[in-house]
Amino acid sequence: MLHIRGGTVVTAERSTRADILCDDTGLIVQVGANLETPAGYDVVDAGGLLVMPGGIDPHTHMEMPFMGTTASDDFYTGTAAGLAGGTTSILDFVIPGSDRTLLESWKAWREKARKAASDYGFHVAITHWNDQVHADMGTLVQDCGVNSFKHFMAYKNALMIEDETFLHSMRRAGELGALCTVHAENGDAVAYLQQNLLEKGQTGPEAHPASRPPAVEGEATQRAITLAGLLGVPLYVVHVSTEEATSAIAQARMRGQEVYGEVLPQHLVFDDQVYTASDWLKAARYVMSPPFRPAHHQKALWGGLMSGQLQTTATDHCCFCKAQKEAGKADFTRIPNGTPGIEDRMSVLWHFGVKSGKLTPENFVALTSTNTARIFNMYPRKGSITIGADADIVLWDPTAERTISAATHHQNVDYNIYEGMTVSGLARKTISNGKLVWDNGDLKAVRGAGRYLERPAYKRSARFPL
Amino acid sequence: MLHIRGGTVVTAERSTRADILCDDTGLIVQVGANLETPAGYDVVDAGGLLVMPGGIDPHTHMEMPFMGTTASDDFYTGTAAGLAGGTTSILDFVIPGSDRTLLESWKAWREKARKAASDYGFHVAITHWNDQVHADMGTLVQDCGVNSFKHFMAYKNALMIEDETFLHSMRRAGELGALCTVHAENGDAVAYLQQNLLEKGQTGPEAHPASRPPAVEGEATQRAITLAGLLGVPLYVVHVSTEEATSAIAQARMRGQEVYGEVLPQHLVFDDQVYTASDWLKAARYVMSPPFRPAHHQKALWGGLMSGQLQTTATDHCCFCKAQKEAGKADFTRIPNGTPGIEDRMSVLWHFGVKSGKLTPENFVALTSTNTARIFNMYPRKGSITIGADADIVLWDPTAERTISAATHHQNVDYNIYEGMTVSGLARKTISNGKLVWDNGDLKAVRGAGRYLERPAYKRSARFPL
Amino acid sequence: MLHIRGGTVVTAERSTRADILCDDTGLIVQVGANLETPAGYDVVDAGGLLVMPGGIDPHTHMEMPFMGTTASDDFYTGTAAGLAGGTTSILDFVIPGSDRTLLESWKAWREKARKAASDYGFHVAITHWNDQVHADMGTLVQDCGVNSFKHFMAYKNALMIEDETFLHSMRRAGELGALCTVHAENGDAVAYLQQNLLEKGQTGPEAHPASRPPAVEGEATQRAITLAGLLGVPLYVVHVSTEEATSAIAQARMRGQEVYGEVLPQHLVFDDQVYTASDWLKAARYVMSPPFRPAHHQKALWGGLMSGQLQTTATDHCCFCKAQKEAGKADFTRIPNGTPGIEDRMSVLWHFGVKSGKLTPENFVALTSTNTARIFNMYPRKGSITIGADADIVLWDPTAERTISAATHHQNVDYNIYEGMTVSGLARKTISNGKLVWDNGDLKAVRGAGRYLERPAYKRSARFPL
Amino acid sequence: MLHIRGGTVVTAERSTRADILCDDTGLIVQVGANLETPAGYDVVDAGGLLVMPGGIDPHTHMEMPFMGTTASDDFYTGTAAGLAGGTTSILDFVIPGSDRTLLESWKAWREKARKAASDYGFHVAITHWNDQVHADMGTLVQDCGVNSFKHFMAYKNALMIEDETFLHSMRRAGELGALCTVHAENGDAVAYLQQNLLEKGQTGPEAHPASRPPAVEGEATQRAITLAGLLGVPLYVVHVSTEEATSAIAQARMRGQEVYGEVLPQHLVFDDQVYTASDWLKAARYVMSPPFRPAHHQKALWGGLMSGQLQTTATDHCCFCKAQKEAGKADFTRIPNGTPGIEDRMSVLWHFGVKSGKLTPENFVALTSTNTARIFNMYPRKGSITIGADADIVLWDPTAERTISAATHHQNVDYNIYEGMTVSGLARKTISNGKLVWDNGDLKAVRGAGRYLERPAYKRSARFPL
Repeated sequence: MLHIRGGTVVTAERSTRADILCDDTGLIVQVGANLETPAGYDVVDAGGLLVMPGGIDPHTHMEMPFMGTTASDDFYTGTAAGLAGGTTSILDFVIPGSDRTLLESWKAWREKARKAASDYGFHVAITHWNDQVHADMGTLVQDCGVNSFKHFMAYKNALMIEDETFLHSMRRAGELGALCTVHAENGDAVAYLQQNLLEKGQTGPEAHPASRPPAVEGEATQRAITLAGLLGVPLYVVHVSTEEATSAIAQARMRGQEVYGEVLPQHLVFDDQVYTASDWLKAARYVMSPPFRPAHHQKALWGGLMSGQLQTTATDHCCFCKAQKEAGKADFTRIPNGTPGIEDRMSVLWHFGVKSGKLTPENFVALTSTNTARIFNMYPRKGSITIGADADIVLWDPTAERTISAATHHQNVDYNIYEGMTVSGLARKTISNGKLVWDNGDLKAVRGAGRYLERPAYKRSARFPL
Repeated sequence: MLHIRGGTVVTAERSTRADILCDDTGLIVQVGANLETPAGYDVVDAGGLLVMPGGIDPHTHMEMPFMGTTASDDFYTGTAAGLAGGTTSILDFVIPGSDRTLLESWKAWREKARKAASDYGFHVAITHWNDQVHADMGTLVQDCGVNSFKHFMAYKNALMIEDETFLHSMRRAGELGALCTVHAENGDAVAYLQQNLLEKGQTGPEAHPASRPPAVEGEATQRAITLAGLLGVPLYVVHVSTEEATSAIAQARMRGQEVYGEVLPQHLVFDDQVYTASDWLKAARYVMSPPFRPAHHQKALWGGLMSGQLQTTATDHCCFCKAQKEAGKADFTRIPNGTPGIEDRMSVLWHFGVKSGKLTPENFVALTSTNTARIFNMYPRKGSITIGADADIVLWDPTAERTISAATHHQNVDYNIYEGMTVSGLARKTISNGKLVWDNGDLKAVRGAGRYLERPAYKRSARFPL
Repeated sequence: MLHIRGGTVVTAERSTRADILCDDTGLIVQVGANLETPAGYDVVDAGGLLVMPGGIDPHTHMEMPFMGTTASDDFYTGTAAGLAGGTTSILDFVIPGSDRTLLESWKAWREKARKAASDYGFHVAITHWNDQVHADMGTLVQDCGVNSFKHFMAYKNALMIEDETFLHSMRRAGELGALCTVHAENGDAVAYLQQNLLEKGQTGPEAHPASRPPAVEGEATQRAITLAGLLGVPLYVVHVSTEEATSAIAQARMRGQEVYGEVLPQHLVFDDQVYTASDWLKAARYVMSPPFRPAHHQKALWGGLMSGQLQTTATDHCCFCKAQKEAGKADFTRIPNGTPGIEDRMSVLWHFGVKSGKLTPENFVALTSTNTARIFNMYPRKGSITIGADADIVLWDPTAERTISAATHHQNVDYNIYEGMTVSGLARKTISNGKLVWDNGDLKAVRGAGRYLERPAYKRSARFPL
Repeated sequence: MLHIRGGTVVTAERSTRADILCDDTGLIVQVGANLETPAGYDVVDAGGLLVMPGGIDPHTHMEMPFMGTTASDDFYTGTAAGLAGGTTSILDFVIPGSDRTLLESWKAWREKARKAASDYGFHVAITHWNDQVHADMGTLVQDCGVNSFKHFMAYKNALMIEDETFLHSMRRAGELGALCTVHAENGDAVAYLQQNLLEKGQTGPEAHPASRPPAVEGEATQRAITLAGLLGVPLYVVHVSTEEATSAIAQARMRGQEVYGEVLPQHLVFDDQVYTASDWLKAARYVMSPPFRPAHHQKALWGGLMSGQLQTTATDHCCFCKAQKEAGKADFTRIPNGTPGIEDRMSVLWHFGVKSGKLTPENFVALTSTNTARIFNMYPRKGSITIGADADIVLWDPTAERTISAATHHQNVDYNIYEGMTVSGLARKTISNGKLVWDNGDLKAVRGAGRYLERPAYKRSARFPL
């Protein structure tokens, strides 16, 4: 039981001086100025700090089997690292293999995730279409607390679906009150370009961005929006990284279509020069999809966030250690795709967004938790500081600096893509379900303390909340 | 002292079952489920109703001298009509004449407004530039509670300013932490086209839209945005009525520029066919600027509201009775420009926005009060249901129908532009500063009960809150 | 041998008073003012007429086997009808079946076409990918006079190709100096929507446009442009019918990409109301793909033609008689897709384009022949009035009116989609290879007089001529 | 009398091997393959060369009084330098002062221009509005061979007009069949920014681009297009230098509006880094308006030229020697605005356009002469190689290189903005009115040999020729 005292509570709406009481069931039970400390409550001093809803990262891949290996952060290490960075919930992805049904896969993921230190929920990927898939989607939504499905337009001959499958899934999700999310890159074009580059002897990491140019993402985003528009269902585009995709989303929204876009902080700060590092491993670290882009795309992403046309931030946290990356030494298409980042998302966004004057602290809260909670139907349980909400809270120091390094991070990976970057703004203390789990550098994450987030179907037929 | 009991509190963020207590100083003192009724409190039954922040209309012209006459609703009748429709605050315009300084004009308007039945604030128009204007802007912001200034790019040889004046005013407002608002139509083009139409013998109301085609608004909006962008100051565009203007605003926002747009419900529901009525007076009623547009522009305005690229709704409430309109019988340029509407704004927006499925109730609150309060720096005192906020509250019946008519409205004007329109959604009860002033058809507005809203300068140097 | 005397020669560049001499080999041998009539030459009086290059229709389907039947105009009747309307060349499509190679198919089409009354060439469709296709493309370009290939993004499980095949074909065409053309509609979406509509019991012609909404074309056009842009090859989009596709093409061109667009006159004059006819057969006549669109798309197509961003006009002439159309009586997806029109293309474009003031006579020539000849590498042999060019010439009466009717047309089909429409501008006389084949209503077309047009590969590596 | 033998004639339409005969009246009298040399004709060997219409520069300011000084190239030296670069016609500007009528000014300019070595015509600037201006416009068009008028939206308190004047002039020009041209920069904004920069102590050339940012041009271009659109008259935008202006033009054209845009080669090759030279004079050389832009704007200009949305190239040739530039040593607003370039326009465009693969030789001809001749109604007398046309011809060596330098140029100015740049493509020989005036480095320009170009009003009411 905690009394968070003397801080400035910042929500997506406003900033006010207020104290918070969190009871022993992990809920916020009072919010108000100058509260008395009830008996049995520990005081957490928030003097000089911003008290915000804990971050929600709606795009992580903990211990995911992918490209012949498994992501190195498991549900415990990954969520613990999240807590150290102020993130108190994740939404991870169930990726059904060809040998298991959606439901079986979801169960398997549920098992794996029991070790999580923070709360977690799941999106489930749709990778093919048949009656079983149709039925399982219903079960997942109605009985399993899943209200979002993922679709890959890339990774041909692996996860990629064709447009007709996407349409079937969209219709089914629409019936069920679930949200479709999409990884939008044209997988045919990527496959073609990869083969082409390899034939030309371009096997290094610098070929990676060449195999997935911005237009490939812009095209697929436009296509996904068109398909969703045909059915009148909402759409959530993950890891928007280009001007083209941003513009497609904004234009659709201006036509009244319900489309949301997610941005990864790494796309806001890195450009495609990272792939030109002479050190193979240094370049390979940045191999993720979509890749880092020519710098002018960053301007578009910021514009999207500032104007409200892109709504969330995530990390696509997917760690592969150096030794794992080396699987692609002779062939860039075999470098496991993914970058770590759950621990640094909030710092990086604060530094480059709020400190630079592009975003207000309220915008920051909206982009790190509130909008995500709304879109994925966890609000106000998550993403808010209100009575009755989960006591997932971060005490943010807006001006303290830290230098990011693998030497000090908590992610289970032997490098950090932000290595050496000094940023302002950090999580001083993190509270998860009413427990102080990160305290000024001391990580007290508890294996298995996280709970599964059942997310109900959307009730309203019409529009989502943003 | 009121206990609003049993309703669903709807804010811009969410809807929850909660009661509200309003004390005798006119403030909200408690919000929570199933509150006890304290001694001395009257119970207001909100069963089956939505309890929302009272509406704010940021664009009214009460008893304004204009085009040789004076708007027929004065500060009392106009604000009383607003209360009957659920609107509890207005922002009106001080329009300095050539014979008075800004400050003198503001004082004159303050006097006129003392009779208001609801709270009110002022924007002050900048119609020329000199050192006195520069100085008065400072006084108004620092001492008089004015944090917004109005600029007319139309009404040549009357209110219109040239771009250089606009730039001077923008810079000054930026220094002071005040917001520039703009009526964006190219006044040179309007003057030219008016003269041209009159020369061709086109003197009736149908010439009015021809004298101010959509491109004239699109151009001026683009220009105003460009000028604001040169100085890096925020901009608020009043009565956006066209696809072109909407698009210009959205594009600027996507570049990270801070631009806001306001929509009048009448532009959402009427098109330029209103000017073809064979009855002169019927057509003349709709003469306002910008005029009603070809119907496809409505789609763009809705898209702007739904995507968050347009943020507020207002009425430009400016009543001229039939006899006043007749001043332009022989010459459409002499028809006093303006339409009534403060009483019907919220109903019309609910019916065409929420009932049709375009907007959620939360969006409705954002568009009728919360966003406006934020943009004009009155939040959370206005536009929120929180402890400490002003007890300006409307109890909304989301399904009740009414047929709009001058026979039953409270506006001091002898017609209603929505005459005969049946809409769903109406204010059952309105509370202003803790007093029940509209009770199921019974208007209890009190002359002079309204208070002047001092709006402080914006503190933050960087971005505004949306 | 003809002396065309006293007319105004109109080319894509200019209009001048000049005579023309055509020798007995079918070539233009002199162009100049007031020429003497050489011995043995017949004088063709062009007084008061415009003398223009004969029309080229780059998109016809004569006697095409399709949807279980065969188009009713064969190469003779179809080209003869073309001559009556001023069109002296066609480019038809070789559509390889699953049982024949590209080369075999091309040979079969060559045989069928020997009966043609005017000159003709072929595009060859690529409907799958393998080494044989790769090899045959080479043979066709190098030995067979084919310099353009067709790709269908629609007609799933029939002609449709996936993006990877399209990319392979584009690369091959690029190597060979051939041009890729594309039918851009998302075939997956169409298949899905068709099934959906049928399931809902919507089986009539009015379901046809619902199964192929404008966004389906916009999406595919955008995608085709993206793919071509990845390889840096030019692209020609057939039958552009929407604002979305027009805009995608224009934007690509503004980025410096080489993209061309073709418009069918029927899309300029009919809208989707044609499908609501109570008479099934009347509605079924208009079933073609892409379908007729809401009227505002016409404005975009005109804008594209007027600004030079769309370059050619064609007909997609594909006749199915009433009895053939009835195959889809119970199921709109079985109505043979296609509309007749080769005979009326030029009149309709003149009437709605030139007479209305949108286009100049020079624009008309560019859009009916010159641009097409350039893009498909037949210029200046076709599409020009210059010494050495083929004597394919139309003598155009710019003001004469005619009422279009199946009763008087020469197309082998028992209705005319323009039935009853009165248009200004008609072909008074048509000369094909130096022979007068249409003379004031008297059709003298000769079976087999047409020659196969061998079109060489494009020489230049860089850009095409427009 | 010349026989140009053995070259490849390149027009805007095509390239063919052909000889040309030019008679003693300065006209082309024959064009054909392998012509005999008639008696009395001198043979000009065109072997290996491209034979193209002489360039037309539609934007020059010879000996213009401006900003307290006079441009250093007079009509003789300037046109002679043009001939050395392959340019055989110019359109210069009559700029009426406050003390003279339009007609008087035109007469004065006619006098000054008598010394010209090549043909020349005039645009006349409209700098204010009254009945005399209205009358003089009529006289100029009907009696003086002027068919285009210039309007400045910049240079406040000097040449700048307000929008209403622009509208009056546009209507008048429309009646007369004359074309309105516009310098599109927002003069109010420029004046404001200049004052602002000077107040902040920014007095050097680097403040010049800051005083006229890209948005200032984009805005004015949009505004000019809007005004022209209101009246339905064509518009020609001079020196388009930004993405914003290019896009505004393209969008208007796509709506069917008749708008043309002109590009200066210097804007294609220089960016705003030129103003950061530490040597004041080096930076001051580049002071012209609109200024050089951030590099990404060049991409947009190329896209405009390649897609046909921008149609002409010009130089805005306006020479001020170093000593003249020094008038602005202490105040950048006093640096005479202008850059030299008539001699190098064609080489620079060839090198960066054709050699780089962006443009074909035919495009080059269109952009250097043909389009200009059409737009300004001099075609086919100028801008074509046809019988009866003026024998203004350049023999172009497509591969020869030269290094541009003030040491070798013929312009009367003591520096060259392209100094040291090596370009491929140069004029080997230039023929003006049938006389060889530039022969492999030998300039034989004749003072006063140029003729005044009377350009008739446009006959057609509807659309211009492109």
